[in-house]
Amino acid sequence: MEPGSRGAAPGGVSVSAVLPAGGSGERLGGATPKQFCAVQGRPLVSYAVRAMERISWISDVIVVVSPENIETMKTIIEKYGHKKVTVVEGGITRHRSIFNGLKVLAENEFSSHLLQKPEVVIIHDAVRPFVEEDIVSKVVMAAKEHGAAGAIRPLVSTVIASAADGCLDHSLERARYRASEMPQAFLFDIIYEAYQQCTDCDLDYGTECLHLALKYCKTNAKLVEGTADLWKVTYKRDLYAAESIIKDNLSQQVCVIISVKETLAQVGFLLPESLKSQIKVEAISISLSKNDSHLQNIISGQCYNFVCVNDKGCAIQEIQELVDVLEKSNIPLLYPVVLILVHLDISENNSFSIGMEDLTTIKKFARETKKKNILVYGLLIQYK
Amino acid sequence: MEPGSRGAAPGGVSVSAVLPAGGSGERLGGATPKQFCAVQGRPLVSYAVRAMERISWISDVIVVVSPENIETMKTIIEKYGHKKVTVVEGGITRHRSIFNGLKVLAENEFSSHLLQKPEVVIIHDAVRPFVEEDIVSKVVMAAKEHGAAGAIRPLVSTVIASAADGCLDHSLERARYRASEMPQAFLFDIIYEAYQQCTDCDLDYGTECLHLALKYCKTNAKLVEGTADLWKVTYKRDLYAAESIIKDNLSQQVCVIISVKETLAQVGFLLPESLKSQIKVEAISISLSKNDSHLQNIISGQCYNFVCVNDKGCAIQEIQELVDVLEKSNIPLLYPVVLILVHLDISENNSFSIGMEDLTTIKKFARETKKKNILVYGLLIQYK
Repeated sequence: MEPGSRGAAPGGVSVSAVLPAGGSGERLGGATPKQFCAVQGRPLVSYAVRAMERISWISDVIVVVSPENIETMKTIIEKYGHKKVTVVEGGITRHRSIFNGLKVLAENEFSSHLLQKPEVVIIHDAVRPFVEEDIVSKVVMAAKEHGAAGAIRPLVSTVIASAADGCLDHSLERARYRASEMPQAFLFDIIYEAYQQCTDCDLDYGTECLHLALKYCKTNAKLVEGTADLWKVTYKRDLYAAESIIKDNLSQQVCVIISVKETLAQVGFLLPESLKSQIKVEAISISLSKNDSHLQNIISGQCYNFVCVNDKGCAIQEIQELVDVLEKSNIPLLYPVVLILVHLDISENNSFSIGMEDLTTIKKFARETKKKNILVYGLLIQYK
Repeated sequence: MEPGSRGAAPGGVSVSAVLPAGGSGERLGGATPKQFCAVQGRPLVSYAVRAMERISWISDVIVVVSPENIETMKTIIEKYGHKKVTVVEGGITRHRSIFNGLKVLAENEFSSHLLQKPEVVIIHDAVRPFVEEDIVSKVVMAAKEHGAAGAIRPLVSTVIASAADGCLDHSLERARYRASEMPQAFLFDIIYEAYQQCTDCDLDYGTECLHLALKYCKTNAKLVEGTADLWKVTYKRDLYAAESIIKDNLSQQVCVIISVKETLAQVGFLLPESLKSQIKVEAISISLSKNDSHLQNIISGQCYNFVCVNDKGCAIQEIQELVDVLEKSNIPLLYPVVLILVHLDISENNSFSIGMEDLTTIKKFARETKKKNILVYGLLIQYK
């Protein structure tokens, strides 16, 4: 595939992303830089990369890390199957790291890997794991029109200026100011020009890309109101919060797998429809197969709960295959996964088409998988 | 006890606290105002009240709630045994609520309950559960000297000003500004004077008490660098974080109860000393009794883990009593509680002073308490 040809971007521009991930995470109070801290067994940076990677119209994701973490980052990319990522060595400050990432895109090539200089570049943080396509798209559109754009949020606390004696000088009127968050996006030529003209002082002490675009290219960034989930993992409590949000998302999603005869399909499809009012539902109609890439995508997209609707005698086989797929995935099963097996019985007589022997097998199977933190439940529906 | 006589305040001043708890918690996205949201089964406001109440030199804690939540607040006070609290009806804005709280202190009396106008008043938020005595003390001392003082924190994000067209006007130099947090403290006469002179506009649209002290009393507040745990529960993710922090604290505290003969005391006391390097240890030397108020205080202070050191034959009885105390407390046992029974055996011969029968009883007891989420472990040390 040609670089940059992966999807249709908003406004038809080519888009790539730079993720500075070189920080030391001092405020977190641990030895591991926060972007490499595991949340539900997966490093934070991997969530941010995945969030960018999932957006089809983003061509390349440049992750900039400090020299000592390049191997760690490459291992993460391999382990979690990240596809569009190029790892680049960072500088000693945030701005220098971003500049390194932009240079790689400008040069169209990095260690014999072809890249395309994009029309719009997104700058996002490795420690903001929950960015949605909607806000990324809005910021990119605004950048195309205004040259620069960034997500903002209301201030949580009043901001104050202190005098030299450590006393209050003045407090800012909260309504007039905003917190500058990520993602930000820029016409590539504007932000690259700004970094090229940038003084050493700005490169070493500044942190705000929107400021550089304004100072060096007279570009007033468009400010785009973001959602609460754009916050940056800064302190240990933020790691706790990230973990709980991920768990919460997991427990509120279910994948309904429908594998029934046509005459029964109607019953099968009623289920996802009625579930939708309660929970986020992904419904697929397939016969399970271990190599099914759609299913793999759903699992790596972190939907762990499944309802399998079928009408075959060998119901257990299907659920066994699903457990196999789950086990072979790289996902950490720290959170109990729920599999519900719905067996539609269409036999004319009143005897169950699942015999006692099958039931014993299913029960035994459920006990075994429970040890792996996978909870299997069965539901038999007689349908005449 | 006379109001205001409960402890020696820093600098010898009399101190009371006002906790505005009238907010609607819109940003949290739930029906329950955030201060009443349960964290580990206990409403957030109760943690903040407890944090203030534990400080011996704070005389009165005025909690200001909206009219519809007065009964809820009174129930919380009763349920969690809060002692120094007066519930006052709030106004329609934060400033009006704080003003109501101050009025009650100024009038020395509230619904036939005697109060004392303090020299220094602390203003803290009901939704900042983790304030420590150290920062409260620093803020009070600074208020005594400067007339006003408030805790501050570094800014997490760059703060920007937007122009009328929704574009960036300018970004603030992050190092020059601080986030204004709580607690704040004031010489009572200064802040009360400020509120009395305050315009309706300030009362209705302002939020910053330091600003009022500056504007109406020309008092430049002293800014005191606070710790990361002063943050305000604003969004749902903050509730998650609060819950994890509380769980974390619980799992890292242990109470060592030493109930041994004098000759063995040395062994008993070596244990808390060596534990101290690993974990927060509270050591008490008592014979357990269900009515022991010191133990009750420890439990309500949320130390759930216990090591009981004894040398009696009837070791099991002591641990049974402790389980009784735990069960009768109001604490939610959502988190597994660990009880370790250390039995020091001083018998001269090699046979254990705990017989097989005792062991069976202990094992059975441990199994039963496990169902209540209390984990009992035993340790036998032969000491000659």
